[in-house]
Amino acid sequence: MAGAMGSTSSSSRMRALNRALESGALSQVSRMLNHTLSSAELGHLLESSPPHTRKVLWELLEKKKQSTILPFLGDDLIADVLRDMSAEEVADVTSDEDIDIDDVVDILQILPERVTQDVLNAMDDQNRQRIEAILSFPEDTAGGLMNTDTVTIRPDITLDVVLRYLRRHESIPATTDTLVVVNRKDELIGLLPISKLLVTDPSITVREIMETDFPRITADTPDDHVAQLFEREDLVSAPVVDKEGRLLGRITIDDVVDVIREDADHSLMSMAGLDEDDDIFAPVLKTSRRRAIWLGINLLTAFIASAVIGIFEQTLDKVVALAILMPIVASMGGIAGSQTLTLVIRGIATGHIRQNNLRWLLSREVLVGLLNGLLWGLAVAVAAALWFSDPKIGIIIGTALIINLVVAVFSGSMLPSLLKSINIDPALAGSVLLTTITDVVGYFVFLGLATAFYSFA
Amino acid sequence: MAGAMGSTSSSSRMRALNRALESGALSQVSRMLNHTLSSAELGHLLESSPPHTRKVLWELLEKKKQSTILPFLGDDLIADVLRDMSAEEVADVTSDEDIDIDDVVDILQILPERVTQDVLNAMDDQNRQRIEAILSFPEDTAGGLMNTDTVTIRPDITLDVVLRYLRRHESIPATTDTLVVVNRKDELIGLLPISKLLVTDPSITVREIMETDFPRITADTPDDHVAQLFEREDLVSAPVVDKEGRLLGRITIDDVVDVIREDADHSLMSMAGLDEDDDIFAPVLKTSRRRAIWLGINLLTAFIASAVIGIFEQTLDKVVALAILMPIVASMGGIAGSQTLTLVIRGIATGHIRQNNLRWLLSREVLVGLLNGLLWGLAVAVAAALWFSDPKIGIIIGTALIINLVVAVFSGSMLPSLLKSINIDPALAGSVLLTTITDVVGYFVFLGLATAFYSFA
Repeated sequence: MAGAMGSTSSSSRMRALNRALESGALSQVSRMLNHTLSSAELGHLLESSPPHTRKVLWELLEKKKQSTILPFLGDDLIADVLRDMSAEEVADVTSDEDIDIDDVVDILQILPERVTQDVLNAMDDQNRQRIEAILSFPEDTAGGLMNTDTVTIRPDITLDVVLRYLRRHESIPATTDTLVVVNRKDELIGLLPISKLLVTDPSITVREIMETDFPRITADTPDDHVAQLFEREDLVSAPVVDKEGRLLGRITIDDVVDVIREDADHSLMSMAGLDEDDDIFAPVLKTSRRRAIWLGINLLTAFIASAVIGIFEQTLDKVVALAILMPIVASMGGIAGSQTLTLVIRGIATGHIRQNNLRWLLSREVLVGLLNGLLWGLAVAVAAALWFSDPKIGIIIGTALIINLVVAVFSGSMLPSLLKSINIDPALAGSVLLTTITDVVGYFVFLGLATAFYSFA
Repeated sequence: MAGAMGSTSSSSRMRALNRALESGALSQVSRMLNHTLSSAELGHLLESSPPHTRKVLWELLEKKKQSTILPFLGDDLIADVLRDMSAEEVADVTSDEDIDIDDVVDILQILPERVTQDVLNAMDDQNRQRIEAILSFPEDTAGGLMNTDTVTIRPDITLDVVLRYLRRHESIPATTDTLVVVNRKDELIGLLPISKLLVTDPSITVREIMETDFPRITADTPDDHVAQLFEREDLVSAPVVDKEGRLLGRITIDDVVDVIREDADHSLMSMAGLDEDDDIFAPVLKTSRRRAIWLGINLLTAFIASAVIGIFEQTLDKVVALAILMPIVASMGGIAGSQTLTLVIRGIATGHIRQNNLRWLLSREVLVGLLNGLLWGLAVAVAAALWFSDPKIGIIIGTALIINLVVAVFSGSMLPSLLKSINIDPALAGSVLLTTITDVVGYFVFLGLATAFYSFA
């Protein structure tokens, strides 16, 4: 963590840099960029800068410094930055010894397939082999998340030998809280926590004190399962094995933290039709294009709702109060439904909601919807009846509200697992589908009830 | 990490437990609970169980086991579980040596003030003093997050002495990746990473190799700043000091991971009017009460929208097509606005958006809103004109859509920092306010334009 800096002094340095940038003192900016700020701070600075400033900053950075910043940038930004580089330049930048191998893999996975191959060809053999080993696993698995910098020891040596062996190293990899014990076949047989190594009599052998009861993470374990495991068991690092139990590498908490953050952000951003990997400061056209699709899909659902309203044109023509009140029913359904939807999406993501407790949750939600429907249905009924001096319209809107709230919470509970079972991301499609349902049902029930009531009158 | 278990075998054990529960084999369930499953797994199991099952499980647990599970439960559940215990029992449970002191503090902070005091009085002096030291800091600061189990050393001893000193310990605290170097006044002067201790010649002194360039976190640093620092600098632990630079304790990554998860979940849950600390499996009445308030607030905003529509009663009475089309304008504004709102809320939470780049973002968003308004405004105009064979209605809805989209993205960009400046949580109030704005503006502009157009005709 050399180069890490204090939060207070860090923000004061950032302010100084901003002042220098605004006054156009580029040589001063350049000095600060290359010598004062850490790579993490620079990454944050670039992520927080509009396109033009970002370009100026990047060009003021020394080549060597540029490469150390890459692991701190989002996918969108890395793609931007590497687009103008040749395969050799990318290979050069990513071969820098200050970058972890798993970060290099992350970077390569952002590039187009063809470019990745060129970059790999431009690397030296040892680097290429290590990277190809990780690249062979999907990005969202333990294999894609792991690093190959594991420190391994044999079970039959004494701790004294371990200590002397470690002392022969120049350095040991960051976030090494355990040494991995393997046998001759490279099979994982135990873990030696460094905290244990430090407090134990050096004449004891590794086998006597190594831990054997710990998570065996295989390379194909999904990354969100890995994150749940780290979070639940407070792990700092964990070894990854292949199907035969042979050691492949290890996962460290810093990469897991990224998974946790992205996973939680994913639900939030997807529900608004955004991508958590998108650059916040992307230029106008890129942003417009991405948002246009989402708005287009929602326009389609809005037209479906309008078509439903259109069915009742004659009723609306007779009773204008219906037009005034109808958005209430649809909007309350949308609100109640998205509460349930949000709860269930997060519950599934954190592993708290599964098939066996979903039924309980569904009946709880329907009861909650019914109770709140009765409460607010009554309130709306009274308010509407008083507003239009017409008790009939009160009964109609109150009933419609109750029905729509129950349908809303039912849909909100069921949609996520239904969508998941057909491999559609519930966070992305759930809210659009839910609004369509609550709009259609809301308008249909309200105007349908009104048509029935008023045609009898 | 003793007792941590493999992800695969863990889920098979959970299945076995569920089978035993369903078949009512309680003695078998009891054996599994108390001897096979880890505290973390039990915590997850309780969190994922409906109230009745949860009660059965809890009562089958041995007292000793109950206490180790507490740190793995959510706030809501801890409050439930401790409600029926006496202060002495809580003191007993929380004095268990297997619980970290910071977890005890978290638990005490959930209890009512009066109970906390009783529990503290029932503790032994040493425990009480350590806990009161942390309790004196707000929960959402570095002081409230820290633990007091720091291993400290003096700068002028050799590494050999350090190694011998450590060996005198029974164990060193979990997640100790650095030893903290303090002077005689207990002032923090450096850090000695254990990874460095292990590879360096033992005759060298601590002062020669200790790191001095690292984050100085003071006790009053907000917890989200701490989380950003850990995430940016890939820290595993960091010392906390008071204003004079004296060591108070240290923060470990496992607690920071909780902050990161809660922080990200907070935005998602608050935008739907939910609380991230709420128990997913809370009973019907508790859930209904919590949701009722949110629905009531939204009902109020829906009535405001209706009141706006009511202004144009006469126009609606003349042209029924307006009633059919008006939800489109409001809903598209809501969608576009909440995209911007979500982006800005996350950007502020992660520290990427500040006052100095908000202006750029605002103009980008307005341009994006304008471009998408032009695109979809044209599409809607053509569709509406064809549907009702009336070019006038096409022009009206197209214009209204453009205006509402621009207002929506402008509001979405500005609301979070405005709300923050008056100390209101943007994630909680932002979406309600935004929908009110996009509904009111959407209906007003569309029906207002229509009134102007059709009264001339």
